[in-house]
Amino acid sequence: MIKAKIVGAGGYGGVGITELLLKHPEVEIGCLVSLSDTGRKMSDVFPHLRGFCDEVIVSPDDPKTRELYDVVFYSTPDGVGMKSAAAELERGAKVIDYSGDFRFGTADRYAEYANFIGLDPVHKSPELLPNTEYGLPELHPIDESHRLVGNPGCFAVSCILGLAPAVAAGIIDPKSIIADCKTGVSGAGKKPNAAFHYPNRYDNMNAYRLAGHQHTVEVEQELSLLSQEQVQMTFTAQVVPVCRGIMSSLYASLHGQKANEVVEIYREYHKNNRFVRVQDAGTPASIADVRGTNYCNLTVDADERNNRLRVISHIDNLMKGQAGNALQNMNLMFGFDSGTTLANPGQYP
Amino acid sequence: MIKAKIVGAGGYGGVGITELLLKHPEVEIGCLVSLSDTGRKMSDVFPHLRGFCDEVIVSPDDPKTRELYDVVFYSTPDGVGMKSAAAELERGAKVIDYSGDFRFGTADRYAEYANFIGLDPVHKSPELLPNTEYGLPELHPIDESHRLVGNPGCFAVSCILGLAPAVAAGIIDPKSIIADCKTGVSGAGKKPNAAFHYPNRYDNMNAYRLAGHQHTVEVEQELSLLSQEQVQMTFTAQVVPVCRGIMSSLYASLHGQKANEVVEIYREYHKNNRFVRVQDAGTPASIADVRGTNYCNLTVDADERNNRLRVISHIDNLMKGQAGNALQNMNLMFGFDSGTTLANPGQYP
Amino acid sequence: MIKAKIVGAGGYGGVGITELLLKHPEVEIGCLVSLSDTGRKMSDVFPHLRGFCDEVIVSPDDPKTRELYDVVFYSTPDGVGMKSAAAELERGAKVIDYSGDFRFGTADRYAEYANFIGLDPVHKSPELLPNTEYGLPELHPIDESHRLVGNPGCFAVSCILGLAPAVAAGIIDPKSIIADCKTGVSGAGKKPNAAFHYPNRYDNMNAYRLAGHQHTVEVEQELSLLSQEQVQMTFTAQVVPVCRGIMSSLYASLHGQKANEVVEIYREYHKNNRFVRVQDAGTPASIADVRGTNYCNLTVDADERNNRLRVISHIDNLMKGQAGNALQNMNLMFGFDSGTTLANPGQYP
Amino acid sequence: MIKAKIVGAGGYGGVGITELLLKHPEVEIGCLVSLSDTGRKMSDVFPHLRGFCDEVIVSPDDPKTRELYDVVFYSTPDGVGMKSAAAELERGAKVIDYSGDFRFGTADRYAEYANFIGLDPVHKSPELLPNTEYGLPELHPIDESHRLVGNPGCFAVSCILGLAPAVAAGIIDPKSIIADCKTGVSGAGKKPNAAFHYPNRYDNMNAYRLAGHQHTVEVEQELSLLSQEQVQMTFTAQVVPVCRGIMSSLYASLHGQKANEVVEIYREYHKNNRFVRVQDAGTPASIADVRGTNYCNLTVDADERNNRLRVISHIDNLMKGQAGNALQNMNLMFGFDSGTTLANPGQYP
Repeated sequence: MIKAKIVGAGGYGGVGITELLLKHPEVEIGCLVSLSDTGRKMSDVFPHLRGFCDEVIVSPDDPKTRELYDVVFYSTPDGVGMKSAAAELERGAKVIDYSGDFRFGTADRYAEYANFIGLDPVHKSPELLPNTEYGLPELHPIDESHRLVGNPGCFAVSCILGLAPAVAAGIIDPKSIIADCKTGVSGAGKKPNAAFHYPNRYDNMNAYRLAGHQHTVEVEQELSLLSQEQVQMTFTAQVVPVCRGIMSSLYASLHGQKANEVVEIYREYHKNNRFVRVQDAGTPASIADVRGTNYCNLTVDADERNNRLRVISHIDNLMKGQAGNALQNMNLMFGFDSGTTLANPGQYP
Repeated sequence: MIKAKIVGAGGYGGVGITELLLKHPEVEIGCLVSLSDTGRKMSDVFPHLRGFCDEVIVSPDDPKTRELYDVVFYSTPDGVGMKSAAAELERGAKVIDYSGDFRFGTADRYAEYANFIGLDPVHKSPELLPNTEYGLPELHPIDESHRLVGNPGCFAVSCILGLAPAVAAGIIDPKSIIADCKTGVSGAGKKPNAAFHYPNRYDNMNAYRLAGHQHTVEVEQELSLLSQEQVQMTFTAQVVPVCRGIMSSLYASLHGQKANEVVEIYREYHKNNRFVRVQDAGTPASIADVRGTNYCNLTVDADERNNRLRVISHIDNLMKGQAGNALQNMNLMFGFDSGTTLANPGQYP
Repeated sequence: MIKAKIVGAGGYGGVGITELLLKHPEVEIGCLVSLSDTGRKMSDVFPHLRGFCDEVIVSPDDPKTRELYDVVFYSTPDGVGMKSAAAELERGAKVIDYSGDFRFGTADRYAEYANFIGLDPVHKSPELLPNTEYGLPELHPIDESHRLVGNPGCFAVSCILGLAPAVAAGIIDPKSIIADCKTGVSGAGKKPNAAFHYPNRYDNMNAYRLAGHQHTVEVEQELSLLSQEQVQMTFTAQVVPVCRGIMSSLYASLHGQKANEVVEIYREYHKNNRFVRVQDAGTPASIADVRGTNYCNLTVDADERNNRLRVISHIDNLMKGQAGNALQNMNLMFGFDSGTTLANPGQYP
Repeated sequence: MIKAKIVGAGGYGGVGITELLLKHPEVEIGCLVSLSDTGRKMSDVFPHLRGFCDEVIVSPDDPKTRELYDVVFYSTPDGVGMKSAAAELERGAKVIDYSGDFRFGTADRYAEYANFIGLDPVHKSPELLPNTEYGLPELHPIDESHRLVGNPGCFAVSCILGLAPAVAAGIIDPKSIIADCKTGVSGAGKKPNAAFHYPNRYDNMNAYRLAGHQHTVEVEQELSLLSQEQVQMTFTAQVVPVCRGIMSSLYASLHGQKANEVVEIYREYHKNNRFVRVQDAGTPASIADVRGTNYCNLTVDADERNNRLRVISHIDNLMKGQAGNALQNMNLMFGFDSGTTLANPGQYP
């Protein structure tokens, strides 16, 4: 039995990992930390947890936060984990951070990312970066040797899993990639704002941050590692009136491959990735197929008339795009079966 | 390990019990029966089950359906279970039926119900009725001696759990009850129709069947059993643009009790009912608190100015209102812990 | 051509009257006032108005606000209109206020209301109260002699129009009324908050302010004026995931009338009320029938078994419940046809 | 005053043009025709029209349909208009058809379209084709000389208006176009089906007809007319849980132009198109800005890093994508101001 601390417990990422850990046979929740709901029971903030998690949320400077927990989840914005992860590691904890803080292996690449999105480019714990891993286990095998993982961005998961096979196989032009991504509103977090006020969001959709979305940097980093060339893409983030779910349409120029060949390449690439399901363009698919689950469903297609790859990638942004993937990482970092608590079909409708 | 057969596997009630049984440590699914999706894999009808339940759905006259299963779920309309339940019982199976077929303990009461909703009043297996139980375990303790259970209607669950304490305690006038009930669309089943076509349903709500809803009969039957007098109520069914969830506002005239006294009576009545949570009117509540779960949350209140009871009852119509409650019954009928696979907080948001 | 000033132009009530006035052949918008969006074009706050209303919103202390406008709409919270309406009237303007400030004809009744909802019970302009009118023209004929009108609350409109015929005809027990009301989210205004954040509101519903909703006071006032006795009711406010629309289920004990007699009484009462449509319980009805319009549709029914009136009242909370009704008042106060710009079927789906 | 006949009055396209014509000062509705709702009042099929349009819907073989109407709208599927438009024209009517029947000026091009979507490639009235016009007035000026117009497809409107300026100016590679289009559910019509059953559609999105959407053909036809080369594109149709609205993300390779140059080209191209609003990528935009209106809002952008055009095109699929555009055509065909009844900002929220 290991003990977990969750920093940022009051947000969607925090409640997501809480729900999962409550069902996990090998983990108990030791400490819930949040800035915003300090002093309240977790189940008062999230009434569905009544009777399941009645722990009181503590502030980040509560002495309880300084005890040793086997695993610490930072469900926090950029800049939080990098300030205290070193202390956690020193105490003996393993750390999984949801933000951009540990997604980039060098201070330079972090600076590039931070500049792209207007943050201070100086990483606060550059000494940790050589030992971080980009926590997408389908691309970077995670095991018990890992102590610090940067859990990927939600859009990034959908794009990387949907493009990696094509990039790795060299079947597309790496400068031709377009990712047209639609997310549910939960991706923006729990804090109310005008764009997600119900009357403004029902029956509405829009593109946003056309000038550049932060997840672009990590997709390009990861795909470039698989390619002979620097990968560069056009990325369009859009938000639609759903709560959970990302659907990314991914396009790139092919070098003449047929749809069935491309599907074969994808099946082969992902054959050992238990949370990735590859299907061809004739199979019905929607985000409901993955809602509430850790699966990524890929519909793999080629527009042969235009010699173009088209992949539709479906995930639950709060699961494979966040807490579910974090738990998959945790399972691997502690030697549990990767599917513990995650090998689950969800609930429909 | 017991084996289950699900009749009506292609509907919401069928997929609901399938999802639950897939997680149940003591049950395996032996046979999926449906009229509409015969010959297709369950996971082709419900793609979220891919890899979890790839069984082929068989027709009701497939030889496989005549094997012995320990438990048979009839997720079917009125009139189906009554025709073949006897054969199942004879084979040695236990039967849980979702329809009105086995909710009424005598042929007369069944006839009254059937007349109310325009069905043939002659029950096809009247000899079974003395041994059926109305499957709401909070009112009728279910145990291993039970072999045939009529799982209650979704609205009925919300009303009965929300009114039983007041009726049993004799604190309300049994002729003064009004149940103003709002359901999500899934309560109407999987078959598309005009009223639930997305453009007709989004941003819309309406009352329906004002002339009389079938669940009225069972609520009045069950509450009358608890009362000295015949209970009679005004029932209004309404549908709102949510998928899962029932919220029933229940009103009745009090004999002078204060809100806190009423809350106390409710807490006492439900103290051993693990799936019922009683809270007072000051506690925030919504159907999201029970979504995807087997819980019934009751907000208990009195309008003291008007000497009137007001209870807001929240359930997930597909869980405590259908498949979840059916599994609770199954657990009790086989001596498993009543919460197996059900003691679960759901997922939020 | 008359000139209008809109105070509170940045909210839903403000944009609603703006949209209507833009189409009105006899009115031009002279001044838009708001605290929150000062200095921005109306069409930057509400992009659908681009090219239609590019006026700059001014602050309440801008000199422009002190010019004479023929009509001033206060789309503002309680306490705003009462402070400056006197000055407007003195200048020669007519005033329509959306808040509770001018809904009560005496300082005592205002104090009762204010106490009920926790506001300062001292009205700031008590000298104006004898000349205000409760602006529901179906009950209080409005004409050119009126200079100050308190536009009613949205729930109140749905309840009063749905109960007035029964109360006036003396067919119900005035102590037996229950109003179970469901509103769309726009009723809570434009300011984002947690309860109406999209992920918290989709697939959700809840009751709120069980301790007492402010609209109760005006419903009881208006119905009592029609009755021999003081009317008192139980009121339950609920919010469902729609944007626009109120559906109120209204119940009361009848003295033996049949459904068809009750329908007749309602038809007679409302026969000259062009924006009220009476239908019997056999006619399909939903809030979509009135969305975007100034109509109130009433489904009139009696549960004869329980000797109980049941009326389902449907309005668009932003139209007949707010800006539409305000325009109806304005039309009457200036001698225009009451339906100018309002006699409109809306848009479907 | 002209008289109109609407064939297909029972569908969304029919009710849409009905709503518009009811407000039109120069048109009266003379005849409503439908296969499905024959004998019912229009206002029984669409209750929001009660008191506005209580005409009885007649069957296509009712004698009334053979009278002369000045304008006939065919809101019907492919294959209907081509069978009877000739008779209408002979009688003296002008015809506006919503289907693919008259969108293609030659029998060969029609055959290409019909083959693409699996219809009989033989046009039933090929003699009419030389005199049809593709009814997108922004590209094909429509005037009183026009007697037969093929109203464009909804997706096609969004794509053509969003790509025409770039194609006409020769700034993009005509083989590089990708159109990633998201539509609301009303685009699929009024007939209920499984994919649009509320529980299957809420919180869901999916791509469909990946093998080829029928609107591709007309977009390619229209853009090729503007180009030196044959235009060919990859088209992805997607459906999201909104009722009204299309948002199309349009991509193509630029020849080095900067974003501001591209915006300038678009503004110039559309400067006389009153229903097209061009804005740059810094201006907030969403489909709510055009809901219920005849406007097309274009957000024009260039991803300069990747030398790629990106245009986000927003329309209401039932207005500029269908009935609104049809009325715009009718206005022009009869010499009315093009904005009659259409120059309207819609309603928000």
